[in-house]
Amino acid sequence: MNLIIDVGNTRVKVAVNEIDTIKEVFVFEKEKIITELKKIVSKFSVSNAIVSSVASFTEKEQQEITTLLKPIFLTSDTKVPFVNKYKTPKTLGVDRIALASAAVKMYPNKNVLVLDAGTCITYDFVTKKGEYLGGAISPGIQMRYKALHEFTAKLPLLEPSKLESFIGVDTNTSIHSGVINGISKEIDGIIKQYQKKYSDLTVVLTGGDTYFLSKQLKSVIFAHPNFVLEGLHTILTHNLAND
Amino acid sequence: MNLIIDVGNTRVKVAVNEIDTIKEVFVFEKEKIITELKKIVSKFSVSNAIVSSVASFTEKEQQEITTLLKPIFLTSDTKVPFVNKYKTPKTLGVDRIALASAAVKMYPNKNVLVLDAGTCITYDFVTKKGEYLGGAISPGIQMRYKALHEFTAKLPLLEPSKLESFIGVDTNTSIHSGVINGISKEIDGIIKQYQKKYSDLTVVLTGGDTYFLSKQLKSVIFAHPNFVLEGLHTILTHNLAND
Repeated sequence: MNLIIDVGNTRVKVAVNEIDTIKEVFVFEKEKIITELKKIVSKFSVSNAIVSSVASFTEKEQQEITTLLKPIFLTSDTKVPFVNKYKTPKTLGVDRIALASAAVKMYPNKNVLVLDAGTCITYDFVTKKGEYLGGAISPGIQMRYKALHEFTAKLPLLEPSKLESFIGVDTNTSIHSGVINGISKEIDGIIKQYQKKYSDLTVVLTGGDTYFLSKQLKSVIFAHPNFVLEGLHTILTHNLAND
Repeated sequence: MNLIIDVGNTRVKVAVNEIDTIKEVFVFEKEKIITELKKIVSKFSVSNAIVSSVASFTEKEQQEITTLLKPIFLTSDTKVPFVNKYKTPKTLGVDRIALASAAVKMYPNKNVLVLDAGTCITYDFVTKKGEYLGGAISPGIQMRYKALHEFTAKLPLLEPSKLESFIGVDTNTSIHSGVINGISKEIDGIIKQYQKKYSDLTVVLTGGDTYFLSKQLKSVIFAHPNFVLEGLHTILTHNLAND
C-alpha cells in the first residue's frame, strides 16, 4: 500500500492506494496528524508514502512523520512527470505541482486545463507535450462572499446558493448572482479562451466546490474531486520508478 | 445652475450643470463637504440641488447643507423616471437608482445594462419599457486583489496591471490573469447572457475603473465615467418638472 498525504492549512487528507486505485480516504484536523497517521499505519501495510503540505510542520512533527513513514516530502525539487516551464518554478505551489502531474498521467498527449475550486480558483495548463505553462489564480466562491461583506459597509455575509435567475431582484439575490453567475461566466469564458488557442482541450474540475460548480457551468468538464491526491500518487510512483 | 452632489464613503463628487450639460466637476474629501460646498455656492448661481449619499451625514452637516442649498436628498421614496420592479425597492442603493435614471434618460426605449466598476461591480438592467428589474453585485478589481492577499497565507498584494498573456507564468502574472482576465470574461459572459434574452441591448460602463476595463472587454460598450452624476441630474429635473 502507498500512503498519499495532502496537508492543507487546517485539514489533512490521506489516501490509501493499492497500485493505482484509491482504496480509502481519511480526513482529519491538522493538529491530529501524528495520532491519525499512527492509526492508519497500524491498520494498513504501508510500503511508500508522499507528503505534500501548504503549511509548515514543527520540527517534532517532521521528525515523527519521517520515522513513521520515510516519505518523500514534495518540494519544487522533487522529480515530476512533466516539464516545468513556469518562469519561477521554485514558487510553484505543491498543489499545482500535484495537479499538473495528475493531468499528464490521466490525460497523456492531451492539452489539459485543470481548475481547482477551493479558497482560490486556480487554473493550471499542461500542453499535449507534457509541458506545464502556468495559469491563473482568482478568488474562490466563499472568498467573494466574504470580500463583499468585509470590504463594504452595508452588504451582508451570505452562504452560497443556487440561482433562480441571473437577474437579482433584491440585495441577496443580486449578491448570489454576482458571485455564482459571475464565477460561472468567468470559468466558461476562460475555458473558451484556452479552447480557441489549444483546439482539443480537456478540462478537469477539482477542489471542494467541484460538485456545486459543475452544475453551474455550460462547458464540458471532467469532475475529479481527488485530483490532487491522484497527482501526488503519480509523483510517488514516478519517483519510485526512477530511483 | 443646478448642483449635483454625489457623496461616497470617502469622497464627494459635485457637478455644476447648466441645463443638461455638466460644466464643471469638483472632487474632494468627505470631511470638507461644508467648506467646499460654500466655495462652490459663492462661485456659481445655484438654483436647485440634489444630494445622493451612500454614507450618513452628521445632524450638523445635514442642517448646513439644507440651509445652504435646500436640496432634494435622494432616497428610495424620491420620484424617479423609471418603474422600480425591484422586489425590495426600499433597499435599492441610491447609486443604482441614479444609474437606472440615467439609463432611461439617455437611452429611452432601449434595453440597457449598466455596469458600474468601482469597489464592487454592479450590474443594473432597465428594459425598453423603462422598468428596472435588478441585476448583480460582484467584487471589484481592487477588492479581488485585496481578498487574494488578505484571505490567504502566501499571496502578495498587487496593484492592477495590464496582461501580457492570459496564461500567468509566475505568482504575480497568475494573480493578474485571475483578477483582470477573470473579470473581463465575467463581464463579457454576463453581457452575452443579457443579449441572448434581450436582443437589442445597450451596455454602459461607468465607475472608477471604466477606462482600465474598457480596454480589456470584447463587448461593445459605451463608456460614461459620470453616469451616476447624469442620473442624479435626471432625477433632479424630473422632480422639478413634476412639482
